[in-house]
Amino acid sequence: MRLVTFVHHGRTAIGAVIEEHIIDLGHIAPDMLTLIEKGVSGLAQVRTAVAAAPTGIPLHETTLLAPIPTPRRNIMCLGLNYAEHVKESYGARGQQAKLPDVPIIFTKATTAVSGPTAPIPYDQTITTELDWEVELAVIIGQAGKNIGPHEAMNFIFGYTVLNDISARDLQMRGKQYFKGKSLDGTCPMGPWIVTADELPQPHNLRLTCRVNGVTKQDSRTEFMIFNIPLTIAYLSGGMSLLPGDIIATGTPDGVGFARTPPEFLQPGDVLESEIEGIGTLRNPVIGDR
Amino acid sequence: MRLVTFVHHGRTAIGAVIEEHIIDLGHIAPDMLTLIEKGVSGLAQVRTAVAAAPTGIPLHETTLLAPIPTPRRNIMCLGLNYAEHVKESYGARGQQAKLPDVPIIFTKATTAVSGPTAPIPYDQTITTELDWEVELAVIIGQAGKNIGPHEAMNFIFGYTVLNDISARDLQMRGKQYFKGKSLDGTCPMGPWIVTADELPQPHNLRLTCRVNGVTKQDSRTEFMIFNIPLTIAYLSGGMSLLPGDIIATGTPDGVGFARTPPEFLQPGDVLESEIEGIGTLRNPVIGDR
Repeated sequence: MRLVTFVHHGRTAIGAVIEEHIIDLGHIAPDMLTLIEKGVSGLAQVRTAVAAAPTGIPLHETTLLAPIPTPRRNIMCLGLNYAEHVKESYGARGQQAKLPDVPIIFTKATTAVSGPTAPIPYDQTITTELDWEVELAVIIGQAGKNIGPHEAMNFIFGYTVLNDISARDLQMRGKQYFKGKSLDGTCPMGPWIVTADELPQPHNLRLTCRVNGVTKQDSRTEFMIFNIPLTIAYLSGGMSLLPGDIIATGTPDGVGFARTPPEFLQPGDVLESEIEGIGTLRNPVIGDR
Repeated sequence: MRLVTFVHHGRTAIGAVIEEHIIDLGHIAPDMLTLIEKGVSGLAQVRTAVAAAPTGIPLHETTLLAPIPTPRRNIMCLGLNYAEHVKESYGARGQQAKLPDVPIIFTKATTAVSGPTAPIPYDQTITTELDWEVELAVIIGQAGKNIGPHEAMNFIFGYTVLNDISARDLQMRGKQYFKGKSLDGTCPMGPWIVTADELPQPHNLRLTCRVNGVTKQDSRTEFMIFNIPLTIAYLSGGMSLLPGDIIATGTPDGVGFARTPPEFLQPGDVLESEIEGIGTLRNPVIGDR
């Protein structure tokens, strides 16, 4: 199932995408977080609604928002979780690469979240180093704490595409990444959540990122250093995970700051983020001041 | 005004503390976030209710929760924001101290938040280095972005006491602080929010932290490196702040890991966190596994 949050004639609702139509699920839950909290029974209701629906709203008549437009709390993100990205990141600073011993976790503010076609604001008084990071995002389906790696996959509701757009100047200056990762509009997500049952092999997906049609990142989720079960086990140690939590699993190599010469997003650019089996985000960069 | 979230006979509500009683404000707003969102008119309603109330519920018959038990998103925290704490932190690693050029911001998970008398869970399989950090926390009252330092104080709803309890082993190993700062129950807050009008000099307050009655931290908020207006201006640059956002302004010197020998919390300890003009948290450390 591909689950969306969409706007149609000014009304926001959740829906299921069937080919080029959206089946409205507004009668099952008012928003995606509520649907996720309904767990297995919520998904059963969705399946019944989809089976019963004559036809839906044409996708092209709607605007898709992030599947979870207002997360319950910050997005949890892994840093340096692909070996080639670790190498390029250290290399850009003239340092020897060192793989992390444990997952490196930082967060992005909820207000950074935006939709699959939303503009990325570019305010040169805030940053001149906006960079891309395509990532597979995991959506947690049920609360848990001290989750073992072998049971971790049972806690997943689904997956989506996320670009962890980063203001490198702010990120590096602040050492802790939060501020450089949290500017408004720097977390496009979507276009939908693919439910876990439809993506049984999340560690075998190609993920790519393009700027103005030129491929910048092209790798596979099998190259994660800490895979999804290990990440969930680590994160949930002593810390409760909640339904609707979003975990971005890190980006592969090919980011802008590590290129020679470094490349950053500019107003007028179009950023595309794609993951095999999920879909594509297409976000234009727009001058904001 | 001192505003609380309290439990009385199994019911949770917000209230105003007048001497040793709580005036129930449940008819004005169902929770603290809703009250904060009501802005000036909400506070006017509270004042009317307090003036009209014959008497309240005795404080000792209630249990206080964190004033905002479930924040809308992660707590934003400043690292290394007192010069003496910067010195002790670098010193503990045998390094020369370097004051930060910009505020260092990380976050704590919403699930870390707990009440002013709640137990601090101690699970030795997760961490053996639980450390204290008493901090003045600022509660944002209205949404804003690109807020100038000169207008920043107008965006504050009030202040509270917060202890940014830190699992130093997890914090240092992960480099990014999120995981080591986010264990369940490691963000006691309260006992109430003192509204901004009653604390016009937030940069002139003594803050202390005691373990089993022994003073460990004893400093003043005037020693912040980045004061409150500068912090709000920096944080809000390109990033929207929301009503109810919680900003912890950093801890002074005297933390456990920088002591010789290092000291950490143990089951049975009682941690007290106090700020002049606000109040005191008193949290016991309890074995959790």
